[in-house]
Amino acid sequence: MQLRFVVEYEGTSYQGWQVQPDGPTIQEILERALTTALREPVRVRGAGRTDAGVHAWGQVVAAPVTRVPADLDRLRRSLNALTPDDVAIRDLALADDAFDPRRDASSRLYEYRILTTDAPSVFWRRWSWHFSRPLDVEAMRTAARALLGEHDFAAFCGADSSAADRTTIRRIITSEVQVEAPLLVYRVEATAFLKHMVRNIVGTLVEVGLGDRQADDMPALLASRDRTRAGATAPAIGLVLREVRYEGRSSPMQPKS
Amino acid sequence: MQLRFVVEYEGTSYQGWQVQPDGPTIQEILERALTTALREPVRVRGAGRTDAGVHAWGQVVAAPVTRVPADLDRLRRSLNALTPDDVAIRDLALADDAFDPRRDASSRLYEYRILTTDAPSVFWRRWSWHFSRPLDVEAMRTAARALLGEHDFAAFCGADSSAADRTTIRRIITSEVQVEAPLLVYRVEATAFLKHMVRNIVGTLVEVGLGDRQADDMPALLASRDRTRAGATAPAIGLVLREVRYEGRSSPMQPKS
Repeated sequence: MQLRFVVEYEGTSYQGWQVQPDGPTIQEILERALTTALREPVRVRGAGRTDAGVHAWGQVVAAPVTRVPADLDRLRRSLNALTPDDVAIRDLALADDAFDPRRDASSRLYEYRILTTDAPSVFWRRWSWHFSRPLDVEAMRTAARALLGEHDFAAFCGADSSAADRTTIRRIITSEVQVEAPLLVYRVEATAFLKHMVRNIVGTLVEVGLGDRQADDMPALLASRDRTRAGATAPAIGLVLREVRYEGRSSPMQPKS
Repeated sequence: MQLRFVVEYEGTSYQGWQVQPDGPTIQEILERALTTALREPVRVRGAGRTDAGVHAWGQVVAAPVTRVPADLDRLRRSLNALTPDDVAIRDLALADDAFDPRRDASSRLYEYRILTTDAPSVFWRRWSWHFSRPLDVEAMRTAARALLGEHDFAAFCGADSSAADRTTIRRIITSEVQVEAPLLVYRVEATAFLKHMVRNIVGTLVEVGLGDRQADDMPALLASRDRTRAGATAPAIGLVLREVRYEGRSSPMQPKS
């Protein structure tokens, strides 16, 4: 039997998802809280390994447990009391042992937020990249659309990508730029992502928005498979793992809020 | 000549607007930044004296200066560099000496946010009151509507109200409850507010939402003028001074973003 839940976090104070020697991680915070609450050693698996500073609103996590907790609502409240207030647990339910949050996911949806105002915003300061130079949104939209479908995204893949990424071919389902004042939001959904892929795409789209790169340059950039030809990696602060989707898989055994 | 600007702040770390002996205030932060940037002692006046912990998205401030700054955009950037990142300055412009942000304001708009989900939210944790018990929104709406118009709001006035509040009669222009998942938002606009008035209204509306008080009880409560008959004061964390309006007054001399 496994626990399955959704976790929200503000990535600012963390070295990303995965346990690291050099600072606190989300995985560590969750394992410590679960181990305390359930009085047994617990290991967790997440759907996506977010990098240092990246946020999540919909990270999906599974944790195998030996005993089924009697009251999931109460367990959720205990876990929220045991975690810092920049990590929150919701939708705690039971799942069968076969559930793998990473492998079973049909797609991931990320959002990248650019704060486009001249002045900084207090409200958005922890959740956006403040970039006040004027951007050509239509050019960015054209460039974003060129990424739709199945492509080799090697040009957008971080150099230190893990060996697990045997192929750099991915399928992008949504790739759109929306004006949601005071933000410019890039939404991208794909079956899976390469290391730094969203941030490398955003860095490239911003160069298009500045006029430093042509919007119709994207097919050639993809074809080059050359990371050095794409834009800089946009800062982690603007990126949020919004949702992990599990189409074609049955819903959890006991959905709970 | 005066500077006129809008300031956003997250109230969490401050003892409110007005200079206090027991902790940092927004007024203090702004006066220090302006004095440093302009190399002359500067005093500021704000449109509303927000309490400790209360936020603002649209506090309007005036600061008399002896010399007109050559470049307002540059001054705004300097001020934002001199203030902590939970205080942000925008829309810096010049105003004539007669402008009084408090006296000239035609109305103030406040928002109070209740986070209604079972689980806490990382994103809303600094900007909302987490209250997960079910609330009857329709009853709250009926009660909120009963406050529209000119009334004596003594029943909603904090006991330690300043002597400046010679009358407890105020005129409410907007008073509405909106479901904006995951939030329940109470929006209230009035010519002016009494001390703790919005938070005391929200505390009372929540009692209506819980069924502990009747929605049609509001006229009698207003008529009582008795603070002890109204609800508890809702926590500061949910309250935001959204906007200060200046209808009937000419716009600032040099609007700047």
